[in-house]
Amino acid sequence: MIEPFDDTYFMRKALNEAKIAFEKGEIPVGAIITIDNRIIARGHNLTETLTDVTAHAEMQAITAASNFLGGKYLQKCTLYVTLEPCQMCAGALYWSQISKIVYGARDKERGCINLKTKLHPKTIISGGILAGEASQLLKRFFIEKRNLN
Amino acid sequence: MIEPFDDTYFMRKALNEAKIAFEKGEIPVGAIITIDNRIIARGHNLTETLTDVTAHAEMQAITAASNFLGGKYLQKCTLYVTLEPCQMCAGALYWSQISKIVYGARDKERGCINLKTKLHPKTIISGGILAGEASQLLKRFFIEKRNLN
Repeated sequence: MIEPFDDTYFMRKALNEAKIAFEKGEIPVGAIITIDNRIIARGHNLTETLTDVTAHAEMQAITAASNFLGGKYLQKCTLYVTLEPCQMCAGALYWSQISKIVYGARDKERGCINLKTKLHPKTIISGGILAGEASQLLKRFFIEKRNLN
Repeated sequence: MIEPFDDTYFMRKALNEAKIAFEKGEIPVGAIITIDNRIIARGHNLTETLTDVTAHAEMQAITAASNFLGGKYLQKCTLYVTLEPCQMCAGALYWSQISKIVYGARDKERGCINLKTKLHPKTIISGGILAGEASQLLKRFFIEKRNLN
């Protein structure tokens, strides 16, 4: 069976990135950016590895996508990210003028929706794609971390 | 006369960074980060040079300060930035748990105050230091840019 290029297909690729973060001992969040159903950037959380709070998955992916496109605007792109973006990442996405944001799990405390971060008027946001898998991975990370301490 | 290590002294250093951005054809915003009255990081806007919307002055300074300190939290640090931080930068500052943010000019449209970006509860924010010089530099940039086009 041929897999369709739908939101679930691309979110699975973002989840793969989250799993790479997990293996590195990072809070497991992953992101990819597509244009015309083609993946042009990947990123996973690297805040511990790089000792840098700005190294979220989305930030890595935005930088990589701009690098690929040779331009700083991501107007025809879609970001797939396993966890709802925080204020910083949503603020970066605002500047990028990205077309579409698709997130997995909600982040009610630190996510951009409840904190009302302003997105670009041209940006559509939707979520809940593979949310269970994304949040399970996060839960497993925090349980394992607690048991180690 | 010995110059005192006050907010004006450090904001002047941030303004120097903004002038470097200006010379590079970048929107002139500069930032520095201090700890115990010592400058540990400098940054200026590089969004055009790096073709990257995330390359704001504050983001560069946060990354550089974390690198200098060898830790990702900036709890005893102060950021001096010539323009009120945007949502992205304020969101990054939230994660950094920085002690103090001092900005120069207000940004009523895209700044974190009117957009109500959440800061860390331990962070104090104040502004207006050398605001006239910071906004004059920005105005000059946009006038020159308009005349070139």
